[in-house]
This record gives sequence, structure tokens and C-alpha cells, in this order.
Amino acid sequence: MATKYKKKIFNDPIYGFISTPYESILKVIDHPYFQRLRRIKQLGLTHMVYPGALHTRFHHAMGCTHLMKQAIETLRSNGHEITEEEAEGVILAILLHDIGHGPFSHALEHSIVKGMHHEDLSEVFMHELNKEFDGMLDTAIAIFKNEYPKHFLHQLVSSQLDMDRLDYLKRDSFYTGVSEGVVSNQRIIKMLDIVNDELVIVDKGIYSIEKFIVARRLMYWQVYLHKTVISAEFMLVRVLERAKELAKKEIELFCSPALRFFLYQNVGKEDFQREEVIKAFASLDDYDILGAIKVWMDHSDQILSTLSTMIINRQLLKVKVSKHPFTDVELLSEKEKFMDRTGMTLAETDYFVFADHMENNAYNPSSDTINILFKNGKVMDISEASDNLNIQALTQTVRKYYLCYPAH
Amino acid sequence: MATKYKKKIFNDPIYGFISTPYESILKVIDHPYFQRLRRIKQLGLTHMVYPGALHTRFHHAMGCTHLMKQAIETLRSNGHEITEEEAEGVILAILLHDIGHGPFSHALEHSIVKGMHHEDLSEVFMHELNKEFDGMLDTAIAIFKNEYPKHFLHQLVSSQLDMDRLDYLKRDSFYTGVSEGVVSNQRIIKMLDIVNDELVIVDKGIYSIEKFIVARRLMYWQVYLHKTVISAEFMLVRVLERAKELAKKEIELFCSPALRFFLYQNVGKEDFQREEVIKAFASLDDYDILGAIKVWMDHSDQILSTLSTMIINRQLLKVKVSKHPFTDVELLSEKEKFMDRTGMTLAETDYFVFADHMENNAYNPSSDTINILFKNGKVMDISEASDNLNIQALTQTVRKYYLCYPAH
Amino acid sequence: MATKYKKKIFNDPIYGFISTPYESILKVIDHPYFQRLRRIKQLGLTHMVYPGALHTRFHHAMGCTHLMKQAIETLRSNGHEITEEEAEGVILAILLHDIGHGPFSHALEHSIVKGMHHEDLSEVFMHELNKEFDGMLDTAIAIFKNEYPKHFLHQLVSSQLDMDRLDYLKRDSFYTGVSEGVVSNQRIIKMLDIVNDELVIVDKGIYSIEKFIVARRLMYWQVYLHKTVISAEFMLVRVLERAKELAKKEIELFCSPALRFFLYQNVGKEDFQREEVIKAFASLDDYDILGAIKVWMDHSDQILSTLSTMIINRQLLKVKVSKHPFTDVELLSEKEKFMDRTGMTLAETDYFVFADHMENNAYNPSSDTINILFKNGKVMDISEASDNLNIQALTQTVRKYYLCYPAH
Amino acid sequence: MATKYKKKIFNDPIYGFISTPYESILKVIDHPYFQRLRRIKQLGLTHMVYPGALHTRFHHAMGCTHLMKQAIETLRSNGHEITEEEAEGVILAILLHDIGHGPFSHALEHSIVKGMHHEDLSEVFMHELNKEFDGMLDTAIAIFKNEYPKHFLHQLVSSQLDMDRLDYLKRDSFYTGVSEGVVSNQRIIKMLDIVNDELVIVDKGIYSIEKFIVARRLMYWQVYLHKTVISAEFMLVRVLERAKELAKKEIELFCSPALRFFLYQNVGKEDFQREEVIKAFASLDDYDILGAIKVWMDHSDQILSTLSTMIINRQLLKVKVSKHPFTDVELLSEKEKFMDRTGMTLAETDYFVFADHMENNAYNPSSDTINILFKNGKVMDISEASDNLNIQALTQTVRKYYLCYPAH
Repeated sequence: MATKYKKKIFNDPIYGFISTPYESILKVIDHPYFQRLRRIKQLGLTHMVYPGALHTRFHHAMGCTHLMKQAIETLRSNGHEITEEEAEGVILAILLHDIGHGPFSHALEHSIVKGMHHEDLSEVFMHELNKEFDGMLDTAIAIFKNEYPKHFLHQLVSSQLDMDRLDYLKRDSFYTGVSEGVVSNQRIIKMLDIVNDELVIVDKGIYSIEKFIVARRLMYWQVYLHKTVISAEFMLVRVLERAKELAKKEIELFCSPALRFFLYQNVGKEDFQREEVIKAFASLDDYDILGAIKVWMDHSDQILSTLSTMIINRQLLKVKVSKHPFTDVELLSEKEKFMDRTGMTLAETDYFVFADHMENNAYNPSSDTINILFKNGKVMDISEASDNLNIQALTQTVRKYYLCYPAH
Repeated sequence: MATKYKKKIFNDPIYGFISTPYESILKVIDHPYFQRLRRIKQLGLTHMVYPGALHTRFHHAMGCTHLMKQAIETLRSNGHEITEEEAEGVILAILLHDIGHGPFSHALEHSIVKGMHHEDLSEVFMHELNKEFDGMLDTAIAIFKNEYPKHFLHQLVSSQLDMDRLDYLKRDSFYTGVSEGVVSNQRIIKMLDIVNDELVIVDKGIYSIEKFIVARRLMYWQVYLHKTVISAEFMLVRVLERAKELAKKEIELFCSPALRFFLYQNVGKEDFQREEVIKAFASLDDYDILGAIKVWMDHSDQILSTLSTMIINRQLLKVKVSKHPFTDVELLSEKEKFMDRTGMTLAETDYFVFADHMENNAYNPSSDTINILFKNGKVMDISEASDNLNIQALTQTVRKYYLCYPAH
Repeated sequence: MATKYKKKIFNDPIYGFISTPYESILKVIDHPYFQRLRRIKQLGLTHMVYPGALHTRFHHAMGCTHLMKQAIETLRSNGHEITEEEAEGVILAILLHDIGHGPFSHALEHSIVKGMHHEDLSEVFMHELNKEFDGMLDTAIAIFKNEYPKHFLHQLVSSQLDMDRLDYLKRDSFYTGVSEGVVSNQRIIKMLDIVNDELVIVDKGIYSIEKFIVARRLMYWQVYLHKTVISAEFMLVRVLERAKELAKKEIELFCSPALRFFLYQNVGKEDFQREEVIKAFASLDDYDILGAIKVWMDHSDQILSTLSTMIINRQLLKVKVSKHPFTDVELLSEKEKFMDRTGMTLAETDYFVFADHMENNAYNPSSDTINILFKNGKVMDISEASDNLNIQALTQTVRKYYLCYPAH
Repeated sequence: MATKYKKKIFNDPIYGFISTPYESILKVIDHPYFQRLRRIKQLGLTHMVYPGALHTRFHHAMGCTHLMKQAIETLRSNGHEITEEEAEGVILAILLHDIGHGPFSHALEHSIVKGMHHEDLSEVFMHELNKEFDGMLDTAIAIFKNEYPKHFLHQLVSSQLDMDRLDYLKRDSFYTGVSEGVVSNQRIIKMLDIVNDELVIVDKGIYSIEKFIVARRLMYWQVYLHKTVISAEFMLVRVLERAKELAKKEIELFCSPALRFFLYQNVGKEDFQREEVIKAFASLDDYDILGAIKVWMDHSDQILSTLSTMIINRQLLKVKVSKHPFTDVELLSEKEKFMDRTGMTLAETDYFVFADHMENNAYNPSSDTINILFKNGKVMDISEASDNLNIQALTQTVRKYYLCYPAH
């Protein structure tokens, strides 16, 4: 399949073994930018609720390449041409699709690196690596940016049925132990085909797709939007916001140089064109963030130290969940209870009592669709094709409202 | 937990080990009526599509007792009293709930033992065993028939969330290899509680119930009502009907004495009060049916031999599936093609070309409901409680129509 | 990979999906000779001890092709040429390696088809099929008989590390639920290489080989030679021997035509050149044997009916196991107890009280060896290469002696 | 089973769900000393070779309680009395058996906290917690220290077959993906019994024990002593030694206050009687160590920065392994090559080129033995009882020698 070189095999509790069919893949993996993903957990603080959820973005990216190889094999055996160069490119593209993730992405993007999204950063990092590797990633980048002629290659990297989702649903469900999220990746991939340069699923795979959509939705409610996970994440935003405020006032905080860079400076989206900023960001990982918060437990600022202690010792805020927004009265009532008890000001109380919301739709037919190929050659969107599950119902966005407050 | 006796442990690929906490359980298992379930496959001819689906009613019944023990443990630890006698009774009841199954139940009930349902037969067999074991099954029978004061014990044996369903969904999905059907039994059982003598699920188990309902529905379409499985089963009905007809004409057929009993006599529901009939039925298993069909491949009656050969060599009828009934014209058109090709009469053609339908609703709120217990003490039916999946949609009955016809 | 044709995918609880890369494979699978393997359990009566062990020779043969495809892929990616024709041939060879198995092979070979071994029969069947398929199996047969120039292809089909063993150890351990037998097939296959036309394992796979040898040995003691399994199998030999004796005396026995052929005639090894004998043998499966024994429970011959009843109702003979042969005195003592209790003659008693032995060595270095390839290019037999486990000890044959006798 | 309180259930990818039967267990888990185990990986840097091996000491300790509950249930059902107080005590004892572990224990004990072993520290921490919880841990501590009258309770916590080993072998094999290490915990536990206050295994569990010993040995070679894992660990010792040397010279190093405490002071075993030392140690976790090393990559000391960079970017030292010690000549030769290339002094070279050894025996009959109980009442050590595997061979200590050196 590939030029002969010293392949490596990675053990994976899920797929058994993941091999590296091209030398370029091993080169990318060995780069510090990629090795850094070993220190960034895929699910942030989710392990506080599901103690097994410690898997990293490194392992997820590796898993994606494994599925991509299977997808290539299926499509080729269905008679579609994928050249070796394209195969290498699309595997590199999926390997690197998340390279722009920082630690606790959601929390960081809402606190100290506001406005910067990991998708944009992944592109920045890919270009950096491409320079270093003398254009080795040209095809991968074209596929990633959807500028490559064969559109379906991009869909394998980024669409409602890409290898990213297939791996993370399986991986997250495996490591959390939430067996309800288990998806039959292998079967879905075997059902892939291409019609008019678009990925489709052959009709007998329709049940697996239905199950995939349901599983994704359940994983949202049971894991990704689990109220205690959300509480931990909201608290992380708060503690980083507080640190940023203190930094603005030139108050000294223990932190690594990389974290210092983002706390004591204002870094916006536009700054990520500067080499120095990219380097600093590339040094950030879970260790910088949690390592600092651990030390902040003893900081003289009461808000910082209290929030830090609560996170580290897992004394998380309680959460009420509702289908309807919480009223100002409800929110104020919780705030007053807290102020009475602690003597904090209303401004300080905002760090401990707050309302927010989250939403989710398992399948979004208005964006990229999942298309089913019937034996008669017709192609139909899954939400129309299924007379089984009420996929229509699943396309409704469900929004949930959270009210966080201290235990007593 | 139990009186000290020589316990036995059964290996189970699914649960690891299944133990037999009461001596009465071992006594029942060792009885020929129960041992006979070793020779009756849980899923009939499904293994023709899913080659792993060879598991027996014996193993399923054992698996149910395993789950029942866990359910008892959970309910007790939630503070509900279940005496040792009741525990023993409810385990025996689930162990015996399917004892009345004959081989290929659906096909037999539609051909040579018309009108007799396995539920009724299970009761007949339980009474037989109870006589033999001097009343050892009194409590079990009361629970099974819903005549025992604690209603929830009956629900553990027979309801929309009984241990029967929890085991068979898991077991069937395991052995078919259809991982989409995997259900988190362990979690559902841990969420059981009792309110006003009714089984409920505590609210944080709601996602698992949703998944359970979805999984059940998918297993229906992907396994239980799989068109090729249905084809095999319809063909089995036809071959047994044909044999019965020939028997009526006193034509000699190879068959075991037990099968002869039902082929050469007319046995109706009312006959099952006679000892002789029960004994004959208790001798029937997969070996009688398939053993005869194998020999019928060489019978002089062309219809019998053709159908037998097709089943044994897995040359099954093709199937068209539709959401709407097939018209008489469509059916006749297929029949004519077949008559032209084979020279058979229209009456003979009915054995090879026919239309039928199947239906399924994953959750039926009009019968027994699955109730969710909320923290505030309110109990609500799952189809109302869930704001997540469209359970409402799932409660719609879906009917599919089949048109079976030979390959060419 | 293959010419475009209507591929089929088989579900497998172990590997997920098994595909059929060549049309020839599907042709063979669809043949009645192969379909017949659906009705022959891989482990005979072992399910009486491990109720999950119901898997068939059909599924095992399919599983072997799956592993073979992986082995081909590994060897090719290591730079070894395997043409498409050779790939197809070696997959067909492993698919058919067990086609000669009858039901309960061991018992049959020791009772009614004495002296005929399934290996020889596999060759007979392959030639039959090859005639029918116009030479389609030429390469497969050459590989199977070790007459093909590339010797390593034969080793993939038959050696101490062939795909047969890799599949059956995994499959038997999976279905029995004896997790101790689990072997990392995937890893072993990834470690395959070829030196001088001989299969070798690269050195870092050495631990997996050690584990494989240990697992095989443990499966022997815990499953294949489990004393109750052995008891059931010995009893099956006895009941068939008794039936044969009665048949010789022209006493009428219920049986299928195929079984009748072998009971009422003397069929020896040399007879398997006759078409008629092959056809009869090809009709035999588990249903003929157990279907007859079920009916024999009511036969007037007391020995036949007693043995039949014991087997069907699982009232098996007790077994004593020893490292040393049982003495004539011990045997006679048990026989006398039985004669006193039942009034049977000594000759009759031989059917119920008898001694026998079994032996096993996990690895046999004197036959075909497992060779390890070291980084420096040296190749060494595993029993020398391992400084870890005492493989030497494992190569010792261990023999166990059994004394069977009725329960009371 | 327990007093009614608000139980919690923890998800576990291995066992499904782990419940907390006593309130005391939840109290201990919620304590910061125990929460801290969430930040200490069970296998240190092993994830550099096996990327899935990120599981924490927290999850392992939870897993042990799960197995302990099963062991208690088995022993009780065999008629042995274990009071509720004892059950609670032995579960607490296993929950806390590893509470004294710091991050990267082996490396720390060989560098900055020399001479302090985690077993001793566990006792220190238990006493601390016992004070805080007013004697709640009295029984647990007595069992842990083997001062409780029923000796077998201690054996469940600490012996060659304790719940610690049963969990870690399974857990480590699960997360590394090294399926060869899989052990049938459930079966071993079901085979437990007690004779004369000593834990024994009933004889039919003998194969599982053999497999357990073999699996343990294989896990040693394939995971615990894997040469690249060893290399990473040796490098960690070196970098911490270097940091300690620099600290002695008052050179400033980035580090958390807790790490500073141990780097800039000399802390010996005797110091662990001081509250301040315990507190500092209780603040240390993986984040302190790796967080510092990440920053040291830019330190002006070339040895510190080079070693740090190699660890963080996974550019590990190469390793030669041998059954015999490396000679001084071999070692010097590698050193000289390195000095030539880098211009470093011999003293500096010691950080990059060094020899060491590791040893392992899978079963040590001279310490605590694993005893097998035969049906005749005889109890025998496994190494004598097994006529199957050569357990004798496994009791031999195997020593391997390592020579570490940079890649080029």
C-alpha cells in the first residue's frame, strides 16, 4: 500500500492496533505540535463525572486515521478511484483536523483567548507544519479547506458523517463507560459510497445511521451537556476570567510562561498571525491550566482561591436544569441566599451564582445532509428517507437552561 | 443469601457467570422439560441471516435469572422488602416464563399447532412441574399469573420493562452481532424503584430508557423483521402446512414420533389438557422439525421437496418490502411469471408466491407503561416525561408489507 | 481488490463483519456441501457444559477467511508478493479446510465411520467441488496439499500458527465464555513475516506467541478436555456403537436415511471413493444424530434407551480424573457396584463404566515449529527463543486418565 | 445491605458501574487527599508507549472496592461470617491502600523523596484521615496493618491474590490495549474460600490462577518493564536529580510551591512525621512534575533543558536489552560516542548514557503463597498443585539489563 519504511503500530483499546501507512504520518506525529495533543484531554473536565474519560486529542486523532483507512478501502473496493497521494492527503487532513485545539477549548475561548476558534487555529498550525515539511501537506490542506477537486474527500474529514464524529462518539462512549453511545463505525463505513462526488450511505445502512443520530443525541444529554460536567466547565470559565481580571490589575499569579502570555496580555484573533503568539499557544496544555489552578487555591484573592479549591477538590456548584429560562427573580433569590451566607458583594456573587443555557440538535438537515442511496439510484436525505424513527423530531433543536449555585 | 447447597455456576459469554442461588432453581433446570430448551433456538431461523444467532431458550432463561437477582438486590437496597421466599419465587417465575415455547414457535403456531400460544403453555408446564415438585412453584405461579399481592414482582416478570426483554434484547444483539441493539441492562436495573407497588425508573435513568426503546425498535427492523428472516419463517410455515395436508391424505412422511403426533392428528388448544398431548409437545424441538425437513428434500411430492430443499440449502424466496399493501395485480403478476416458468398450478403457486405483513411499535403506552419517578415524587409515563427523543413518534405502529417470490 | 461483483457481508459477533472479496468464495459458500456446515456445531456436545458453545463449523470457516485476508495484507505490506490468484486460492483453501467434518467428528470416527479422518474427507470434498466448478479450486487444492511452490501459503492454512488455530481458539473462548483463552489474533497477524519461504514472527511478537501457546493449553484443559465434555463425548460413542450392534442384528432403529446408510452398512475408508458414500456422508449433520438419539430414548433395548435418555436429559456419567492410569481393580470395583445396583451383565456394564485417557501438548517442536525472526536476521524456534516462559515445559505431553461411571 | 443514605454510582468502562455501599466510603472519596488521586496516573509515563494508559489511581482504587464487594459476597455465600463492620472496614482498607502514592512514585522515590515508600505513606495518610473522621477508619487500619483477628481480611487487601492485583492487571491491560493481560477476575473471585482463616482457591479455579500468574508475567515484560517505558522512567529520574542538584546550588527553577518544598529542601523518611511535610506531599501530583518539566525545556542549564525537551517531545533514549550485564567497555564506548558528538563532559554524559537492570518473578512462593483447596480437604501451594503449567519455572526470577543512550 505504501512505500516501505519503518512503520509504527499504536495500541488502541478500541480498535486494537492503529498503523501508520505513510512516512509523512509518522513525521507529523513526532512533531512537538502534535505530541502536545498527548497533554490535552478530549473531554476537558468530564472525567470529574465519568472518571474514565481521560483520553486525549492525540488518541482521537490517531483513531480518526484508522477509520479513514477503512473508508478509503471501502470506497476503492466500490470502484471509486482514490490515488495514493489522495489517500495520504486525506489521512493527514483528518490527523490534523484538531491540531488547533488548546486545553479546555470551550473554557479558554470564553475567557482568555476570546474569539479564537480551534478550526481556524488548525489551519494556522497546518500551514506552519507545511512550511517546515516543505509542502508535504499541500494536498491535506486543500482537502481540509474544501479546495480539492474531489469534494467527497473533504466530506470524509468534515461533514455530518465524517471520520471525526465516528471516532469521537465511539471513543467518548467507550471511555466514559456510557454504553448507550456505542455506534457501529465499522458497519457505517462499510455502507459508504459516492454519487456525483458526494458521500452517500447505501440504503441497507439506514438503521445504522438512525442509530448514529440517536446515539449522538443521547451522548449530548448524558455526557457532553451533563449538568455536572457543564457546572465544572462554567466554573473553569469563571476562574480564568477572575485570573485575567487580577492580571489586568498587575496582581501576581502563579503560572507557566505560556499561560502568563495569555493572562497578562490581551490576545485577540488577529494576533494569531504572529509567530510568537502561535508558539505560546502551542505550549499551552492541560498542565498549564490545572497546574496554575492548583496553586491558586492558596491565593489571597478570595474569589480566585475559592473557585480554584472548588474545582480541584471537586466541590462543584449545584445545577438546576429546566426547559424554560430561569427568571431574574429565581436567580436573584439564589444570589441573595449566597450573599447572606458569605457576606460577598453582588459582583462577587456573579462568580458563584449564574444562569446559562445549552442547546443541541442531533441532526441538522439545513447544513450538510446525510444522504441515503436507494437501489433504484435515488438519493434522499435521511430525515426524509427514514420511515422508521422520527428523524424529523430529532432535527428539532432542544435547548436546556441551567442555574448554577453553591451547595449551601 | 440462600440455604447452603451445592450451587452450580454457568458460564455466559454475556454476563460472565450465572449462579443458581436456590436449590429449587437447579431442580427445575435439571428437569427434562427445561433441558429441552437447550434444543430450541431463541431466534428460530434467524441464524440463516446472522450466523451467530444460535443461542437457545435455555441460555436466555438462565440470563433472565441473572438480571432478576440484580433487580432484587437493587430494590432491597432501596429499602423495599422482598422476602427470601418472594425472591426465590420471582426468580423461578422468570426462569419458567418461556418453558411453553416449542421449536420455531411462530411457524408452529401458524401451521401444525394452530391457536396454541406459548404463554398459555408455559402455565400448563408450570403446573405440571409444580405437581411433580410438590408445590415448590406455588409462589412462582402466583407471581407469573399476577395473582400475588405484590404486583411489582409480576412486573419484573412481565411488563414493558421486564427482565425477559432486558435479557433478550441484549442477548439477541450480542449473538447476531448487531451492536446497535446493545442496551445497558445493568444501568436500567440500577435505576429501578417502586412507588405504590408499581415498578418505576428514577429520573436520571430516563436516557437509558429512551435508548432501550430505540434499540428495541431498531432490533425489530434489523433482526426480528429482517426481510430474509421473515422469508425463511414464512417458508417454514408453508412447508409444515404442506406436510400437514399430505398427512391428512395419509401420505407417508419421515418424522419423529412427536412430530408425527401433531402432523397426523388435529391438535387444538383444548387438547392441551390431556397428558398425552403435553408429553408429545414436550418432546418436540428444533431437531424434530429440521431433521424431518432435511429428509423431505427427497420426498416425491414436488412442493414439499422443493420447499424443503430451498430451506435447507438456504435458497430462500426473494422479498419485496413496502409501506403500502401489495395489490392483487402485483401479486398475480409474480404468480404468473412463476407458473409460466414452472408449469405449476395456481394453488401450488401459493406456496411460493404470497403477500403478508408485519408490524411493530417500539413502545405501547396504551398497555403497561414505563413510569419515570422524578425527584419531586411525581411519576410520569416515559412518553410524556421525555422532552428529548420523540417517544411519541416511537409509539406509532409501523406496518410493513412483504411480497415473497422465487429468485428466478 | 477484487473484480466487481455483488459482495456479501456476514455479521460476526467476534470480528464485526466478514466480507467475501471474491465471487468464487460466495459460490462455495452457497453450495449445499458448505451450507451443511451450518448444521454442524464446532464443539459437538461441549454446550452441555458451556451453554454458549453452539457456534458452527460454518462460522468458524468464515472467520478463518477474515483472518487470512488480514494475513495477506500484512505480508504484502511487508513487501512479499502474493498475486490475486494466490490470495484467492489461499482464502478458498482455508474456507474449505474443514469441509470434510461430519457431525460430532470424534465420536463418529470412533463408532460408525471408523478410520475415516476429516482431513482426508476435506480433500475428497474439495475435488468434488472443483469438478463442479470447472477447476476453480485448482490453486486452493495445491496450497491445501502443500504442492504449491510458495510453501508459506500452505503454512497459513496448516501449521502451528495457521489461521485455523487463530480463529478457533478465539471463537471457542468467546462462545464458551472462558475468557482465559482469549488470544490477540490481530497482533499475531501483524507480526507475521516470511524468511526463505517460511512464515516467521518478528521478535517483538514473542510475548503474544507465548500467550498463544499458554492459552491453547489452558483451553485444552478447561474446555476441550473438560471432564464432563469428555464424558458426554464418550457416551455418544457408546450409544452409536450400541446402535451399530443392534443394526447388525437387523433390529429396527429410528433414523434418517443418511444415518441408516452408515448404521446398517459397514463403511470403511476405502468406500469414500464411491459417489454414493460421499453423498450420504454429505447429508449427515447434528440433526441426524441427535434427532435419532432423542427417539431412541423409547427404544426397547435397555442399553440404547438408557444411554440415549442420559445424553438427552443431561444425566451424564460421573468422571474421575487422574495423572496415572486407573487399575483394573478400580475399574472392576465400579463395575461391580453398578452390576449390583442394576442387575446388568458385565458386557452391558461396559457401556456405562469404562476407563480411557486423553493427552495434550500445547506446543510440539518436533513437528512444524513456530519461528521467531530477530532484528539481526537470526531465526530461532520459539521454545529456544523465549527466555521468559518455560516453553520447554509446555512442550511436554501431559496425559490424563478418566474413569467414567454412573452417578449412583 | 447498608444503612440508607444517598448512594453514588460511578461509571467504569471495565465493570460498568461501581456503587458506594457505605456512607463512609463516600466521605473518604470526597476528601481532598483522595480526590488528589484523580491527578495521578496509575502507570506514570507508560502512556508514551501505550497512549490509552491514562487511567488514574482514583479509578483503580474505586475498582478495587468493586471487586472487594464481590469477594465479600462470595465468602458470605460460602458460609463464612463477615459482619457489616468488617465488610465496611475491608472495603475502606482497599480503597485507601494506595492513598500514599505520589506522582510517578518510582521516579520520585529514586530522586527527590528518597527512601520514602508509598506503603508507609498510605498508613500515614490513613491515620490522618482517621483523626479527621473520628475513628471511622479504625477497623480498616487494623485490617490494613494485619492486626485484625480475621487474617483473611488482610489477605483480601494485600497478598499474592489481593483485590489490588486483580484490579490493576485487568485495568492496566484494558487501558493499554494489551489484551494478553486479561484476567478473569470474576471467576477467580467466585472460586475464593477460607480454610483456617486463610484465603484459598477451590480446585476447579486452578486454571484461572495459572492464567493469572502467566498474565501477570506477560504484563511485566510487555508493559511494566517495556524498554521504552523504562527509558522514559529513567529519564524522569535523571531530570529530577538534575533539578535537585541545581536547587542545591540555589539556581532558580520554575516549580509549584509543593514541588519547590521537595526540591529546595532535603526531605527524608523521618520528616514525614511533620504535618507540613505531609501537607506538601499531599499537594503533589502529575501536574506539578510535568508542568515544571515543560517549563524547564527553556532553562539555561543545558542538561536540564535537553532532558526536559526529550521527555516532553517524546524523543526518548534508545535502549538495548540483554540477559547479561553490559560491560564497562560497552558502556564507555557509548559514552564516548556521545561525548564526541556533543562535547559534553563525562559527568554530564552520565545523564544520557547509563546502564541499569530490572527483574521480575511472576509468582513468589517464598513469600505469601496461593493455596488451592482440593475436594478431599487438602490444601496445596499452586506451584505444587499444578501439573499443568510449569509454575516452578515461573517462580524463577528473570533479570533484564538495560543500556540507555541517545538516538544519534
